[in-house]
This record gives sequence, C-alpha cells and structure tokens, in this order.
Amino acid sequence: MTIIDRLRDILGDAHVLTGAEDTAAFGKEWTGHYHWTPLAVARPGSTAEVAEVLKLANETGTPVVPVGGNTGLNGGTFAEGALMLSLARLNRVREFNSEARTVTAEAGVILQTLRELAAEHDLMFPLTFGAQGSAMVGGFLSTNAGGSNVVRYGVTRALCLGVEAVLVDGRVLNLLTGLHKDNTGYDLRDLLIGSEGTLAVITAAVFRLAPAATGHATALLGMRDLPGALRLLHKVQAGTGGAVEAFEFMPRTYMERLAHYRPDLACPFPPEPVNIMLEIATTIPGDDPGARLEALLGEALEAGEVTEAILATSEAQRRKLWEMREAAAEITFTEPLLVDTDVALPLDRLDEYLATMHRRLAEIDPGARELVIAHLGDGNIHYTAYPTDEALSAPIRAAIAEEAVKLGGTFSAEHGVGISKRPTMAAHKDPVALAVMKTIKAALDPKGILNPGKVLP
Amino acid sequence: MTIIDRLRDILGDAHVLTGAEDTAAFGKEWTGHYHWTPLAVARPGSTAEVAEVLKLANETGTPVVPVGGNTGLNGGTFAEGALMLSLARLNRVREFNSEARTVTAEAGVILQTLRELAAEHDLMFPLTFGAQGSAMVGGFLSTNAGGSNVVRYGVTRALCLGVEAVLVDGRVLNLLTGLHKDNTGYDLRDLLIGSEGTLAVITAAVFRLAPAATGHATALLGMRDLPGALRLLHKVQAGTGGAVEAFEFMPRTYMERLAHYRPDLACPFPPEPVNIMLEIATTIPGDDPGARLEALLGEALEAGEVTEAILATSEAQRRKLWEMREAAAEITFTEPLLVDTDVALPLDRLDEYLATMHRRLAEIDPGARELVIAHLGDGNIHYTAYPTDEALSAPIRAAIAEEAVKLGGTFSAEHGVGISKRPTMAAHKDPVALAVMKTIKAALDPKGILNPGKVLP
Ligand SMILES: Cc1cc2nc3c(=O)[nH]c(=O)nc-3n(C[C@H](O)[C@H](O)[C@H](O)COP(=O)(O)OP(=O)(O)OC[C@H]3O[C@@H](n4cnc5c(N)ncnc54)[C@H](O)[C@@H]3O)c2cc1C
Ligand SMILES: Cc1cc2nc3c(=O)[nH]c(=O)nc-3n(C[C@H](O)[C@H](O)[C@H](O)COP(=O)(O)OP(=O)(O)OC[C@H]3O[C@@H](n4cnc5c(N)ncnc54)[C@H](O)[C@@H]3O)c2cc1C
Repeated sequence: MTIIDRLRDILGDAHVLTGAEDTAAFGKEWTGHYHWTPLAVARPGSTAEVAEVLKLANETGTPVVPVGGNTGLNGGTFAEGALMLSLARLNRVREFNSEARTVTAEAGVILQTLRELAAEHDLMFPLTFGAQGSAMVGGFLSTNAGGSNVVRYGVTRALCLGVEAVLVDGRVLNLLTGLHKDNTGYDLRDLLIGSEGTLAVITAAVFRLAPAATGHATALLGMRDLPGALRLLHKVQAGTGGAVEAFEFMPRTYMERLAHYRPDLACPFPPEPVNIMLEIATTIPGDDPGARLEALLGEALEAGEVTEAILATSEAQRRKLWEMREAAAEITFTEPLLVDTDVALPLDRLDEYLATMHRRLAEIDPGARELVIAHLGDGNIHYTAYPTDEALSAPIRAAIAEEAVKLGGTFSAEHGVGISKRPTMAAHKDPVALAVMKTIKAALDPKGILNPGKVLP
Repeated sequence: MTIIDRLRDILGDAHVLTGAEDTAAFGKEWTGHYHWTPLAVARPGSTAEVAEVLKLANETGTPVVPVGGNTGLNGGTFAEGALMLSLARLNRVREFNSEARTVTAEAGVILQTLRELAAEHDLMFPLTFGAQGSAMVGGFLSTNAGGSNVVRYGVTRALCLGVEAVLVDGRVLNLLTGLHKDNTGYDLRDLLIGSEGTLAVITAAVFRLAPAATGHATALLGMRDLPGALRLLHKVQAGTGGAVEAFEFMPRTYMERLAHYRPDLACPFPPEPVNIMLEIATTIPGDDPGARLEALLGEALEAGEVTEAILATSEAQRRKLWEMREAAAEITFTEPLLVDTDVALPLDRLDEYLATMHRRLAEIDPGARELVIAHLGDGNIHYTAYPTDEALSAPIRAAIAEEAVKLGGTFSAEHGVGISKRPTMAAHKDPVALAVMKTIKAALDPKGILNPGKVLP
C-alpha cells in the first residue's frame, strides 16, 4: 500500500488531495517567491487524525509541512515533494468563556473569525494584521505573529495561555490551560510558539481576551524626526495610561509610493520626513479619547514637535488612516525584484539604523530605491530595497541584517525565519543558541521530518 | 588536586566557602522545611568565572545548585553534598536605557535595587513581592516569580526581553537583546525562565520598564461573594482603562488570623466573606484616580455588591492596606505543621474550588484549619491547611492539587516545583509533557549535574 492509500484509509478519499490541479492552491507562497509541488495534501479533521497522519509519516520517513492560511512571508510552507498537512478542517471553537475571558480554538480557526467572535461578546482578540482574513491559529502561533497593536497587547506569545500539539510520533501534548500563572516545569508552550512547524504540529490553543474598546481616537501626524516621535510616544503613553494601540511610522518615501500606487490613499498633507499613524482606545464609559488626544497633541504642536495633525472624525476617516498603513504589502510587492525584510531595533536606535542603511544601500547599488514602514512602538521596521540588478539582492539583504545586528537589533522581528532567513541565521544568530536549537530539534524530531530545511541553518 | 583546590584556583580563596560555619547561611530554606550541608559555596564574580566553575563541575560530575537570594519556597536550593553556585557577586547593572526603557542587570542584582534604580529614572520595574529585599534577578527568573501586580504587568516572563546564561559545559548562551519582537528560532529565553536552575545558569537579563505612576488609589472592600468580586474586577478594569495594579482576596479566615497575629493590622470593619485589597494607578498628569475609583465603587455600593469600602487617604494608610496583604507569609508560617500550596484556577472557578476544598479538608481531617489568600486578578490562590496530624499532610496536599487540576487549574502557579512538588508533577502533569521535559533536560545536561532532583519527577 502506498502512503497515499494509507492516508486515504485514515482520512477518507475526500481529504487527501493529490495531483497538480487539486493541490495547486497549496503550491505557492503569497509573495510569489516560492513555488513547489507537494507529494499530497492531507486534511485531517481532528487532533486524533493529525496524530495518525504524523505517526504514519514518521514511520515512513515522509517529510511533513504543516500549513494554515499559507500567508507566511518566509517560505515556511515550501513543500517540494513533501506531505502538506493542512489544519483548515480543525476549525472548531471548543470553548468561549466570557467570564474568565478566554477562548479555546483549534488550529484551523481563522484570525478574523476569532476577532469577530470576541467582538460579539463585547471582548477583543487583539492580534491584527493585513492577512487576518486567511491566517489561522496554528499559523500565527507557529510564526509568533506581531502586527499593528503589539505596542499595547504584545505579540502572539503574550496572548496565548496554553496549547495542544501533536509530536512527530503521534503523541498528544496537552498544555491546554487557560491560566494566567502556571509554573509546572519547562515552558513547552513558548518553545512551540514561533517554532514554525519544525518541532510539533499545533492543534489548538487557549487565548486571553481583552475588554472591547468603547471608543478610539486616530490621528495622522507629520513630525520632523524620529527622536521626537519616540518622545511623543512616551508622552501619549503616560498621558493616556498606556492606551496607545498603534504607533506606525510612514516616512516620506512610503507616502510617495502610496500616492503613486494608491492615489485614493495619498497623504492629506505634504508628507514630512516622519509621519505617524497613532491610535488610542478607551474602555471607560463616557470617556472622550479624541479630546484627550487633542490636548496631548496641542502641546506638541505648539512646541513645534508635531507640524501636521489630522484627527479622524468619523469611522470612515479612521478606516482610511488604517488603510494607508495596511496597504503596505500591496504597495511593496509591486515588482518582481525586491528585498523585503523585517528587522527590529532597540527603540532609541531606529534613526541611526535608517540613516546607516540609506548610506549602505547607496554604496552597494546607487540606483536602488528603498521603502520603509515601521511598527515604531515596538521598534520593528519593514525595510524593502528595490535593487537595479538581481545580483545585488544578496549583498543588500546581508547589509540590512548586519547593520541591524550591529545596533543591538534582530534580522527577524515578526515574520520568522522559514527558508528565506536561514543564511542570516547562520551569519548572525549566537552560535551557542543555534547549537542548543539543533539539540532540541534532534531530541523532538529525530528523523527530521517536520518542516525540514526550515529555521535552522 | 581536589575540586575545592581547583575552585580556589579559579575564584580565589575568599570566594570558595567551605565548612559548617562559613556555609551555614546557605544551608537552609527560608521556610525552615529543608536543611542541608553543601560541599562548598562558590562565588564567581563574572560570567567567565561561572563558565569555568561549570566546566569543572561537569568534567568532575559534581552536582551544582545555583542560588540567588535563597528565598524560594519549594526546596529548590536544597544542596546536600552539592556545590552551591552563588550568583550574588554578579551584581552589576550593565546598562540602563531610559529612552528605550530597558535595563540589563546581572543575576545577582537584588529585586529591590532594580526597583529603586528604575524609580530614580521616573520608571518602574513592576515585579513586587514580600521577599524583594533579598530575591535576585537569577532567582526570580529561574522561578518565573509572580507577585501582587501580575494582573497588570504579567509574570517575570512578561517583563524579560533577553537573557545570558551559561550551559553546563561552560558555553555562554548570549540572548541578551532588548527587543520587543525577535523571531529568530526557538524561544530559548522562555525555556530557561522558570527552569529552576536545571537547564543552565542565568548570568544576566534585559528587562522592560514601565512608566512610573503619578498617583494611586487603594481601597479595602467588603463583598458578599467571589462572582461579585470578579464582576467588580472587570468593571474597574473597563472603567480605568486597565489600570488595576492589584486585586487581592483576603477571606474572613485570613482576616481573623491577621487580627490574632498582627492586631495592629486588623481589618477596620467586621470582615465579610470576601475582602478585597484593590489598587489602581495612573500615569496621567492631573488625573485623580481616587475620584475615579470612588465613582466606580459608588455604583457597586448602591447595588449592594460592595458592602464596605475604605479608601486610603494618605500614603501611610495605603502602606497599611498593603501590609495587611504582605503579612501573609508571616501569619502563615507560624506553626511547624502546615501544608502551604500555590494553586491557580481559571478566573471563574475560584469559588467552586474553595467550596470543594473546604469540604474535602473537613473529610480528611475534621479538626484541620485552613487559611486562604489569593492574587484574585490572576486566579492564584495560596491555600494553606493546618492538619491535626503529620500523617494527614500528604493526603491533604494531594487533595489540594487534585481538586485544582479537576477544575482546569494548576498545582503550581508561581512558586515552581523544586523538590516539594515533584510528587504532584508525577501525579498531575501531562505525561507527554513530562517526557518532553526529560528529553530536553537530557539533551542540555547529559550528566544531570544541574540542580539534580529538582522539577522533574
Ligand atoms: C498581507 C500580509 C500582511 C501580513 N502582515 C503581517 C504582520 O503585520 N505581522 C506579522 O507578524 N505577520 C504578517 N504577515 C505574515 C503572516 O500572515 C503571518 O506569519 C501569519 O501568522 C501566518 O499564518 P498562516 O495561518 O497563514 O500560516 P502559514 O503561512 O500557513 O504557516 C506559517 C508557518 O507556520 C507553520 N504552521 C502553520 N500551521 C501550523 C500548525 N498548526 N502547527 C505547526 N506549524 C504550523 C508552517 O509550516 C509555516 O512554517 C502578513 C502576511 C500577509 C500576506
Ligand atoms: C516572604 C516571601 C514572599 C514571597 N512572595 C512571593 C510571591 O508573591 N510570588 C512569587 O512568585 N514568589 C514569592 N516568593 C518566593 C521567592 O521569593 C521567589 O521564588 C524568588 O523569585 C526567588 O528568588 P531568589 O533569588 O531568592 O532565588 P533562590 O531561592 O536563590 O533560587 C530559586 C531557584 O532558582 C534557582 N536559581 C537561582 N539563581 C539562579 C541562576 N542565576 N540561574 C539558574 N538558576 C538559579 C535555584 O537553584 C532555585 O531552584 C516569596 C518568598 C518569600 C520568602
């Protein structure tokens, strides 16, 4: 019996996809940077079926690539000749506890579904990013996704209280607790979060929920420089009791590119070197966050730190400011030759980093253009370069990482390593850390069948 | 050459303590539950010296027990015949970055020192608990300590951005980043946090800092029941934008014991079944948190949910309310025969848990008394039983854990496992999780010399 036959026995014919046509939707990355032909796509419907499939793959030495919404940006679902394990059918919300403010959801639940469900209960699942209509629980846990409100709620890791996962030999690891404190041995939950499918397959998780906001105030600001923006961030944090939900940096180059590709979203004032999309939220009944923000900005305007300020006065205007930010992926991936990256710096080093990179890029490729968009509140910059020559991509990519690391930063802030950043891992990750990671990988997946060729150099 | 001689070569004579007298301070636990005679106490002064000592211990197969402030409550520093590795001399603050709001501190820096340093810069290091005058960075990281403001700032894990640690063979693991996002492979930082000295020795860490509060409002409330208290917590969270810093539950039994042992701290009103010490903070200039809290409590008083309310009107009064809470350890450890525990429950199951335990305790030992104190905001209960007979300690301890687990809770919320909870780990921790932990332990410490006999059953 072939492995395909055995998979059909376990899952039924309808849930084992083979052949170019049926697997086509699974054979490429969102960016278009990677294409592949999987052996087959298995679509288990329960944790027990995931366990059966993994046991079979492990016995037969078949490489397995888990896949959720397939919106990852680092080649993490590349699966040439491998068995893809789609978690999409594990899409039940097992429990919603509005008193304890937790939700237990399976790996295939879509982020937006989770957000909507929380909203129906007057609660909020904070995680938000451009791909939320497709990204799934298992996927955003495995990449430890960030997004636009990390400054307030933290990354995925900070929102997850417990996980259920299947080990490569089919054993089910049950760490599904909804507790805020749990010191019972090693933190296996956080070991699996961000491990990009290389250590185990996540089948469900418990998340904490936040109270839903009763109001927002959203503004677009023009400012002269980044140190001033950092001071403003700290000031608005203090002046609102930590209510900053987003503090997104769109430099002039971003605004110019936006005006070109999305004239409907052009900056409403002549872009400054630093433009900030700022949102604060309140849960306080009767509170007026708009008035509070205006007062805080008034001082900064008078002091000349803020030169332009537009406050959204309707939900439509608010949406439009967010769209300016969320169009980032759309206006970045416009041409085939680009180097897209995802670095983070200590909050006080962003300015220096951007100046350095501007210079370095001109040195390597005088004709190259750059595009910058940043989650400034958590020091995370998406720096994209458009080289004039394919051959310059590699040195540019290397420089972007190198300069970040030199300033105490990282070459991978929120998108993870996948395939695309393996060379950077080899070049910049602490060698002792790499050795420990390999030890752990070998201990948990001795045959190396879980998402082979990813994360570790 | 004996190992002691070789240690003296590495550290100098003054930093290798031997003999009953010199090591006496290191030979017992704060609770008095454990006593031991170490082989020696090594006091390295740098990461490099820690590495040398570990290399030597690993080569010679000498068990090593790291120790910080020695305030742990689970027998974690028990070191009969073992080499104790005191981190107290690694007490430098390597960097304080008030712009990026991070601090890099070595393992021997005392918690209170860190708090004071942050306060000098108008910032706050949130972690706070009764032993903060002695507990050290390496110790509170290794136990992933909690304390009284986890409801707002999270446990130690949530405050730590990066660590430096030495592996058992002397290799230094450098994960000392001050970044809010860093997805570069497996989360080794969180694997070490909470590992109680069994996987590596932590030598330094980077922590995030919060803005310092400009004002507090602190109240003691009498309430009828726990579900009402949970509703009030949610209400005050929403009504203050998440500014609740502490929400501590002192039931009538606690207040009675407090009145007995510390009459100066007796409850100022006839204790209700549920008494709550509530504190909110503000960073908003000109904000009056007292007025806000009064307004929120006013409604609850009118609705009859809150029956008694005392608001601190001076810093002295505020301190007194905190002392009522912080006297917990003092009034708990008053007699030799007691079963002290540290469970956590989902927020909506605390009531059911306490009712069940009340019944179970009476069944096992009709004459036993119980004492409860809880960090209610994060579902963490310190349940102490005073048995009438030593022989009943074990079944009582087992029942406390068993009933917590039955309700989706944990038998170790913030104090960790150490020696004292190893049997409970064996009884209740997911067996697959235990197997994975053992695999990781064997991979990182093949000879099993790092804090042997702790955490893993
Ligand atoms: C337009 C756009 C905007 C984006 N914006 C952001 C952003 O702001 N912040 C951010 O962090 N990311 C962003 N991303 C990246 C991406 O959306 C996230 O990484 C997301 O979390 C991936 O979820 P997914 O379900 O699509 O995962 P997939 O792409 O299916 O998988 C991602 C990785 O996880 C593994 N995996 C998937 N499911 C499991 C499982 N159940 N168990 C184990 N391993 C699994 C895969 O093997 C792969 O390595 C963006 C992507 C797009 C297309
Ligand atoms: C009065 C009192 C009140 C307390 N209140 C709380 C509370 O509210 N919340 C709470 O969580 N805890 C509380 N505790 C427990 C204790 O204070 C904490 O666990 C604290 O974090 C221990 O720090 P320490 O430096 O004393 O560690 P130690 O007791 O020295 O060590 C604790 C454990 O960590 C290991 N260790 C120490 N240093 C290192 C290192 N550098 N590298 C690797 N391993 C190391 C030790 O081997 C041991 O297993 C309280 C204790 C007391 C006495």
